[in-house]
Amino acid sequence: MAGGRFLSFEGIDGSGKSTQARLLAEALRGLGRPVTLTREPGGSPGAEEIRRLVLEGDPDRWSAETELLLFTAARRDHLERTIRPALARGEVVITDRFADSSRMYQGISRGDLASLVEALHALMIGVEPDLTVLIDIDPEVGLSRALARKGAEQRFEDMGQGLQRRMRDGFLALAASHPGRFRVIDGARDPQAVAAEVLATVRAHLGV
Amino acid sequence: MAGGRFLSFEGIDGSGKSTQARLLAEALRGLGRPVTLTREPGGSPGAEEIRRLVLEGDPDRWSAETELLLFTAARRDHLERTIRPALARGEVVITDRFADSSRMYQGISRGDLASLVEALHALMIGVEPDLTVLIDIDPEVGLSRALARKGAEQRFEDMGQGLQRRMRDGFLALAASHPGRFRVIDGARDPQAVAAEVLATVRAHLGV
Repeated sequence: MAGGRFLSFEGIDGSGKSTQARLLAEALRGLGRPVTLTREPGGSPGAEEIRRLVLEGDPDRWSAETELLLFTAARRDHLERTIRPALARGEVVITDRFADSSRMYQGISRGDLASLVEALHALMIGVEPDLTVLIDIDPEVGLSRALARKGAEQRFEDMGQGLQRRMRDGFLALAASHPGRFRVIDGARDPQAVAAEVLATVRAHLGV
Repeated sequence: MAGGRFLSFEGIDGSGKSTQARLLAEALRGLGRPVTLTREPGGSPGAEEIRRLVLEGDPDRWSAETELLLFTAARRDHLERTIRPALARGEVVITDRFADSSRMYQGISRGDLASLVEALHALMIGVEPDLTVLIDIDPEVGLSRALARKGAEQRFEDMGQGLQRRMRDGFLALAASHPGRFRVIDGARDPQAVAAEVLATVRAHLGV
């Protein structure tokens, strides 16, 4: 999309991607670039309401298909109300999760919906980030980090260890199949060391 | 779908379709048929929550595309949790609105999304009623009836008279293009007279 640059961070729970998204935003602002830091599900007032509808309550409350529709509704609102306006202002948009998370969570972890996820994305969203940074980490390290946090949004974390392993493999396969868009960065290091590599990667890839 | 029979009522606001859906349910129960009477948006606990998210608040709160995704999420939940189980039990399911309402409201009244509505329906819902009863009424009569009711859900009614006229024409065109599924019934009469014609139509069409 014209104007700004659109970056996403992806990774399993506890990978440190949210921390890395924040550190990258701070670093780019320090370099004088205007940045919008956002996240999914959510990232706009309406999408945050949909987020609450999906993430709170019983994990079986919605089927995988209904959940996919709700996340796609949230993404469409996020795109219209937050991402596109910021890109039009020439900003760097950094989002903690985007469509790749649906490819993993609704596409492979809750059933075999990968082709449905792609078809719905093509129909209703149709946009990919200029660059996706995959923060890769061993699921055991990620899970212990995720469980150390608190909060009501335990749904996905509750899905457990075997799932986290399939998700990691899925993210790595997705990155391998889109080498122009993805960069994979080892997240099992000191956050500042990871952040330095992320910043260098982003500057090289986007010329910012 | 195997087992029961799936009927929808459609029509503009104030057409009397909700009253007719209820009267038909009562008449069929009087004939000894088990009936599930339901409505959209809503019709299952999750779909009712999505209904509140969409129908309350500023009419421009969601774009037409996001609204379509939210209604489709509600419809998917309604189908999975209410309609399919009732059909599997052999019941007659009567719903006050189904996908044809999206074809009108999101497809023609809020923009030119008709082909998007069809594509999303084919991808995520893929089911049509065995019979759709269109209660047809002059928009001026319908609007005066709708305004006589009270409630927080004023969003669609607020869209006004010109819209109601386009919706009526749209519903009639839809019925004409699906003559096997639709029956058009004149709603500008005494409700009991309308109900008698609805019941005769349903019995003839479905053999109930």
